[in-house]
Amino acid sequence: MRIDVLTLFPGMFAGPMGESIIGKAREKDLLEMNVSNFRDYSDNKHHTVDDYPYGGGAGMLLKAQPIFDNLAAIEQATPTTKKRVILLDPAGKKFDQKMAEEFSQEEHLIFICGHYEGYDERIRTLVTDEVSLGDYVLTGGELGAMVMIDATVRLLPEVLGNETSAQTDSHSTGLLEHPQYTRPADFRGLAVPEVLLNGNHKLIEEWRLKESLRRTYTRRPDMLAKLELTPEMKKLLAEIKSELSQDTDSDES
Amino acid sequence: MRIDVLTLFPGMFAGPMGESIIGKAREKDLLEMNVSNFRDYSDNKHHTVDDYPYGGGAGMLLKAQPIFDNLAAIEQATPTTKKRVILLDPAGKKFDQKMAEEFSQEEHLIFICGHYEGYDERIRTLVTDEVSLGDYVLTGGELGAMVMIDATVRLLPEVLGNETSAQTDSHSTGLLEHPQYTRPADFRGLAVPEVLLNGNHKLIEEWRLKESLRRTYTRRPDMLAKLELTPEMKKLLAEIKSELSQDTDSDES
Repeated sequence: MRIDVLTLFPGMFAGPMGESIIGKAREKDLLEMNVSNFRDYSDNKHHTVDDYPYGGGAGMLLKAQPIFDNLAAIEQATPTTKKRVILLDPAGKKFDQKMAEEFSQEEHLIFICGHYEGYDERIRTLVTDEVSLGDYVLTGGELGAMVMIDATVRLLPEVLGNETSAQTDSHSTGLLEHPQYTRPADFRGLAVPEVLLNGNHKLIEEWRLKESLRRTYTRRPDMLAKLELTPEMKKLLAEIKSELSQDTDSDES
Repeated sequence: MRIDVLTLFPGMFAGPMGESIIGKAREKDLLEMNVSNFRDYSDNKHHTVDDYPYGGGAGMLLKAQPIFDNLAAIEQATPTTKKRVILLDPAGKKFDQKMAEEFSQEEHLIFICGHYEGYDERIRTLVTDEVSLGDYVLTGGELGAMVMIDATVRLLPEVLGNETSAQTDSHSTGLLEHPQYTRPADFRGLAVPEVLLNGNHKLIEEWRLKESLRRTYTRRPDMLAKLELTPEMKKLLAEIKSELSQDTDSDES
């Protein structure tokens, strides 16, 4: 996979995109990543990239020209790749795991990171996707692009050491993960649940499924509503609801 | 404000937390930021921070001890600050603008960034908040912490140059931003809408509100449903709906 990033702050990418999984994918030649500063493409002698909005208003907008020309240079360097051009924008579609999976199937991703108040609207004519990280405001698109790249690249075959890891995570199974414990069995008075220590795998699996359901039911009922429950899950969920209502009853007494 | 980050990859933070708004906030002494590697707190001679899960399963878990002791060291260094301890976790509450506003009122934020399969459950006994960036899986909590820090720090008084900028962004007004344009009026055949060029501010404001409503209505009806509409907004929205249904009619003919 090839990834290009267009940004005014290329220095932000060095650390995060060099360490951890992304660094490994680049070492293994599974990923080629290029970060370019679109200020270098400004046709103006002061290398201006922003200007006042027509019609007045606070803040500056990113001009169309530097981004048009930076994209044209990438097109010229890679004429044969199928490109997906992603604009980081708070008005875009919300990024989610399904989008990460889609991106991980692509040949060439291009991320355009804004800064300042916004983009000249004509920049949108060049993009295939407008994507937002979530309902919060960031100072620029850079961190959003890094998050999307991380979520995407870890899904590439051979990137994660352990193939099973990508599949058992929360948001891949549709349930939040159950509580987990590692040694020691007693840490400063905090004990690991008995069931995890007795080696009975059937009981352990049932406990884990039940605690996954409990956590999802109490924290993210919206996720649970999207799942098709097996008969075992229905039975465990009924137990959880009954246990929770007893907790409430005893609190009240 | 003081921010501490606990991570196994402190190098990831240097670029993103040095440039742009965060760098400015640190230069102006509005923010003191410390990144510590909790591996340095491991009481094991090999500086181990992870171990197998009790009950079996794929992947490794972060052990309780290094994180307990790293937090204890921060507590000892800053005994008087009121702390909010945030665990980055996919099973946590989803981060949003309201949470960023809450965080921006705090004196001392501590972010714990996981890696590998997950945390020993006992780590959760030390935290005040478990927060997730969104419904997608990342290789670690580092990028999530950076996003939350960016969204929080830009809300601190005096950090953004232009006070109005923080307030007019999408997700602060409840509507997506209207299209914006900057010079030239004609860029490679793509023209700026007439209304923005004629200097009639009443018409410009009405056009902007209408296009904000149009974008929000077509892309994020969930955001619109949460708003109390003024009579003017209701009138404009009726026009938009009628225009959109005419578009559909003519498409069909």
